[in-house]
Amino acid sequence: MRPVITSVAVRLFDVPLDEVLVDAKHGDHTHFQLVTCTITTSDGVDGTGYTYTGGKGGTAIAAMIRDDLADWLTGQAADAATLYDAMQWHLHYVARGGIASFAISAVDIALWDIAGKVAGRSLVDMAGGASDRCGAYCGGIDLGFDLPKLLRSVEGYLERGFDGVKIKVGRDDDQARAAAVRKLIGDDLNFMVDANYSLTEAQAIEAARGFMDQNILWFEEPIIPDDYAGYARIHDATGCPLAMGENLHTEHEFGYALAQSKLAYLQPDASNCGGITGWLRAAGMCAQAGLPVCSHGMQELHVSLVSAQPNPGLIEVHSFPIDRYTTRPLVVENARAVAPDVPGTGVTFVWDRLTPYERH
Amino acid sequence: MRPVITSVAVRLFDVPLDEVLVDAKHGDHTHFQLVTCTITTSDGVDGTGYTYTGGKGGTAIAAMIRDDLADWLTGQAADAATLYDAMQWHLHYVARGGIASFAISAVDIALWDIAGKVAGRSLVDMAGGASDRCGAYCGGIDLGFDLPKLLRSVEGYLERGFDGVKIKVGRDDDQARAAAVRKLIGDDLNFMVDANYSLTEAQAIEAARGFMDQNILWFEEPIIPDDYAGYARIHDATGCPLAMGENLHTEHEFGYALAQSKLAYLQPDASNCGGITGWLRAAGMCAQAGLPVCSHGMQELHVSLVSAQPNPGLIEVHSFPIDRYTTRPLVVENARAVAPDVPGTGVTFVWDRLTPYERH
Ligand SMILES: [Mg+2]
Ligand SMILES: [Mg+2]
Repeated sequence: MRPVITSVAVRLFDVPLDEVLVDAKHGDHTHFQLVTCTITTSDGVDGTGYTYTGGKGGTAIAAMIRDDLADWLTGQAADAATLYDAMQWHLHYVARGGIASFAISAVDIALWDIAGKVAGRSLVDMAGGASDRCGAYCGGIDLGFDLPKLLRSVEGYLERGFDGVKIKVGRDDDQARAAAVRKLIGDDLNFMVDANYSLTEAQAIEAARGFMDQNILWFEEPIIPDDYAGYARIHDATGCPLAMGENLHTEHEFGYALAQSKLAYLQPDASNCGGITGWLRAAGMCAQAGLPVCSHGMQELHVSLVSAQPNPGLIEVHSFPIDRYTTRPLVVENARAVAPDVPGTGVTFVWDRLTPYERH
Repeated sequence: MRPVITSVAVRLFDVPLDEVLVDAKHGDHTHFQLVTCTITTSDGVDGTGYTYTGGKGGTAIAAMIRDDLADWLTGQAADAATLYDAMQWHLHYVARGGIASFAISAVDIALWDIAGKVAGRSLVDMAGGASDRCGAYCGGIDLGFDLPKLLRSVEGYLERGFDGVKIKVGRDDDQARAAAVRKLIGDDLNFMVDANYSLTEAQAIEAARGFMDQNILWFEEPIIPDDYAGYARIHDATGCPLAMGENLHTEHEFGYALAQSKLAYLQPDASNCGGITGWLRAAGMCAQAGLPVCSHGMQELHVSLVSAQPNPGLIEVHSFPIDRYTTRPLVVENARAVAPDVPGTGVTFVWDRLTPYERH
């Protein structure tokens, strides 16, 4: 008999950050929320998926998994390919993005973890296996840092072995900060800027022209993610390479962005676009559109997904250090992030480190 | 001193339906969920807002109001116009639709209730006051009814004094059922059909041609709400008047639908598009586009909103009888729904009737 799901357990952790971090749109970050979902099957295998937020929505995500998904999943075959679409329809009236995308993501990742353990296959293998490593860069939530601290932070990224850096923008002195960072890192390293959709289209066009003087690889989320055509107009006016994706949650949104926004890079996040299944669909749409696929956040998982693609972009090494609470913090060799080579997702939480932060 | 919010209290009720109801996409409905949000201000006024679901998402909505909004709202001025946009940005990373739209709606409606009580103004007056009444029709979740039961159900609508009816479609015998309903109600009454986005574009085009033989006023949600251009193609192929809106949650989604879908009617639902503030913005966009604005669900509130508009469509009298748990079930005179003429929203819950269904 095909193994079925026998239990779905949810935990929520409010994990403090080492210091308060600020970007242009989300205010102060004092901690991040980690929601884990552990699924057990009738043949005794278990898998863990997860999602995260910047501090809001965690209890709603946990409630949705616990009250709207757990009982419904129990007794069904632990098959991500089938359950992904079924979950979307099951929740549709309160879904199509938002909290449901985060909840479905955590469940889907758990199902992939189970599938890998059952088949003895790593995530990078299951996801395509094009390579076992990929490019990476550090992205700081550093808008509140003064310039000396910003530069020290960037130096820290280079000392950790990365060859690319991204800073937040959305201040009056953005151009001077960008110029100082480019001067610090030299001409050859990847340099990106991220406005967290804090600008108007006119502001974004002016800012893009300035940032291009620093030879940026991309300008991320200059304006609200909903304004697909606005992105195209910014690109048309400036030629600046643009990126977004962390705020797109459905296949339809990715489709519109790829068709209309003239992006240079797409950055889906498996924690909020439907897990590994949702991320791979977005990656496939990128490949069809001729774009490299990048990622946002949870580098410990995305390293496997991006490395596996025929059209790999760069993974973001995010300021939320989820990997600090796993058995394998991100491995970087010669400025390349290396995917774990173990069955399942390769993301194994050290629960003892998280327990002090659990919300009950 | 300007009054500020002093408390935000949330309650969740699983309200049973009289019988199990079925549509083409959401399966069996055994109950609906009602989430109420009661806000108190420093000058002693309180207001109650609410939202509802078909049975999923209720605990997530309640969790978001309780854990992500209540403390943040407390101490702020009870001003819907300011707080509406502030709530959208506050929740943005986990919002842009989904559960957050429902949570924000409940809060926003409570703030309008307070504003009306403070100013001594009714909702229909605050919302524009074009009229005190509007057209209405009964919409059943009746896809599971056999034909005799469907026709008895439609007769019941007419006996209650309505001059318009809507049935669910998405069965093999849709055309025969539609013909039987039109025959029953005669040539003059409004007749609509609703597929709950269960069809492909090709199926919808074929079905639309058949339904037009029954002189339908509109064909509702033939395909998924995300496919804006698909709606336009169905209209272009058939000339059939189309409607949607109950699954659109953001101004951006309404904008895309109005610009691209060639709709004849828009049907925003204040319980899931940002409350009264969100609904009025959608109604204003309709007016600009030259479309009548209708509504989905919670007739006891939408009667005030639709009546108040210069471009009124029809309110749907929905199968979820929220108004049965209020002091004023919908009033119908000469087939017109009449807006309440009391300060605030005019929706006052009889808590004793709901308490047996409260989830703790
Ligand atoms: Mg970003
Ligand atoms: Mg409908």
